[in-house]
Amino acid sequence: MINRLIKEIQKKNAPIVVGLDPTMKFIPGSIKEKAFSVYGETLQGAGEAIWQFNKEIVDAVYDLIPAVKPQIAMYEQFGIEGLIAYKKTIDYCKSKGLVVIGDIKRGDIGSTSAAYAVGHLGKVQIGNESYAPFDEDFATVNPYLGTDGVKPFLDVCKEEKKGIFVLVKTSNPSSGEFQDQKLADADNRPLYEIVGEKVNEWGAECMGENYSYVGAVVGATYPEMGKVLRKIMPKTMILVPGYGAQGGKGADLVHFFNEDGLGAIVNSSRGIIAAYQSEKYKDTYSEENFADAARAAVLEMKEDIATALEQN
Amino acid sequence: MINRLIKEIQKKNAPIVVGLDPTMKFIPGSIKEKAFSVYGETLQGAGEAIWQFNKEIVDAVYDLIPAVKPQIAMYEQFGIEGLIAYKKTIDYCKSKGLVVIGDIKRGDIGSTSAAYAVGHLGKVQIGNESYAPFDEDFATVNPYLGTDGVKPFLDVCKEEKKGIFVLVKTSNPSSGEFQDQKLADADNRPLYEIVGEKVNEWGAECMGENYSYVGAVVGATYPEMGKVLRKIMPKTMILVPGYGAQGGKGADLVHFFNEDGLGAIVNSSRGIIAAYQSEKYKDTYSEENFADAARAAVLEMKEDIATALEQN
Repeated sequence: MINRLIKEIQKKNAPIVVGLDPTMKFIPGSIKEKAFSVYGETLQGAGEAIWQFNKEIVDAVYDLIPAVKPQIAMYEQFGIEGLIAYKKTIDYCKSKGLVVIGDIKRGDIGSTSAAYAVGHLGKVQIGNESYAPFDEDFATVNPYLGTDGVKPFLDVCKEEKKGIFVLVKTSNPSSGEFQDQKLADADNRPLYEIVGEKVNEWGAECMGENYSYVGAVVGATYPEMGKVLRKIMPKTMILVPGYGAQGGKGADLVHFFNEDGLGAIVNSSRGIIAAYQSEKYKDTYSEENFADAARAAVLEMKEDIATALEQN
Repeated sequence: MINRLIKEIQKKNAPIVVGLDPTMKFIPGSIKEKAFSVYGETLQGAGEAIWQFNKEIVDAVYDLIPAVKPQIAMYEQFGIEGLIAYKKTIDYCKSKGLVVIGDIKRGDIGSTSAAYAVGHLGKVQIGNESYAPFDEDFATVNPYLGTDGVKPFLDVCKEEKKGIFVLVKTSNPSSGEFQDQKLADADNRPLYEIVGEKVNEWGAECMGENYSYVGAVVGATYPEMGKVLRKIMPKTMILVPGYGAQGGKGADLVHFFNEDGLGAIVNSSRGIIAAYQSEKYKDTYSEENFADAARAAVLEMKEDIATALEQN
């Protein structure tokens, strides 16, 4: 799957992933009204509105991008009905040829991580039958529990030719609280570097053609740390959240890439899917053509990153 | 909810939580056959088998224990149908007067953690209506993202009078890889102690009568660390996994408790729900009376912990 992701990035010339993180306030009134008119203002109604919203966004941008990253929390907040919309979104995106990165940030003790790995990336056995319940192509994983919390994901990835992105340095303001702590037994280097070294180690036994299928998450909001982590994890695909709405700019991203122009894939969520509500686009686009605004925002993001990479 | 949890612990004289972590191999053949005869060897069949299994376990032990802790991964591995069984289990346990700790180990950047908090502990707004999608009483939370990943859970807890347990030192073998790292800027104390201090700090503004509704997870498998963490977090309820199948014993647990005999609640999963398969019980119990074996195992665990606390 890492080879396919890279081929799609090259084919579409866009190291970009669109975060499908719908909230009720991003969804145009007309879509909500239609869903509520059938299902009422219910969890099912919300699920339907999310699914219709996603579908229009995907239809408008799928030819431009290699991958999408639905954030499962945005679906899980609507319970079972939200998760049904999550699953529909995954299936639809795959039918459009997109690589799907499930932003699930799971991670637990071994036997429990194995259950998450099976449910999201693998197949679960029931009697003589087996099923792929959520069936994302990649999943994000939290490393706090150490190797035996990550290992079960690697086992499933090897079997299914899928991949993971391990949280190394997250994009949020307080990520440094624990992640930046200097470690006495590692020459005072920060924890995120040591996690990065582990990712590199885990990845070495999970190599695709040029990149490992054990990737890392490093926030666009910390470009200097990205530069160091790029060197620590040379064969690691870095998933870079925090571009756009969270403050990351194209120029901040150059050091996340390798000299081959690859090695990073940048996510934008709100900046794309709610572009029609942004200062920049709200005069040109309205609720009726929210999906066109998303397309314009993808094109602009693609240009921003390409320009930054060329100038480097 | 923390006050209620403590009252239930006192009333039942049992600082015990039963982990409802069903797997296909724990479920007696007769339950599986019945479920499969209606739904086939499908995800729905698995969900039904899990739900019937849980129901019998709960019926057999609910009068002895204050709380249950379903591990969501064990349900999520069966996709939507598994999560329907998770939700049914929560509702049923609450109807039996049990406190429900959702072992979800979620944690993300602020806006995303807010979605998890709303979906699991709070209410989600849809138009003019609001719904409590999963509605557990407590949830476990991963701290790797720092304060702004935890804060949204606290906000919801304050509003809903619920609580969380933050992962501090987990029970698994490789938990030390990152959690035990000595921090140069904290007098070489390990990361888990610093996370413990944060839990204490977050908890100070979330006090119930005597304990905070910000609890901590500390594995029974690390009793010496539990002793230190008990002192660092005096007002924190500690959820202690790792008893039984993972190797923790009653005598290991005494230092997790305060002098008031409270402050900790010990989880056992496999050791209870799959007791009928264990060396100890397999000659006395069979598949037909698996729930009686679970009851016997709860009584034995209660005795083990009570004896250890008395001898201390």
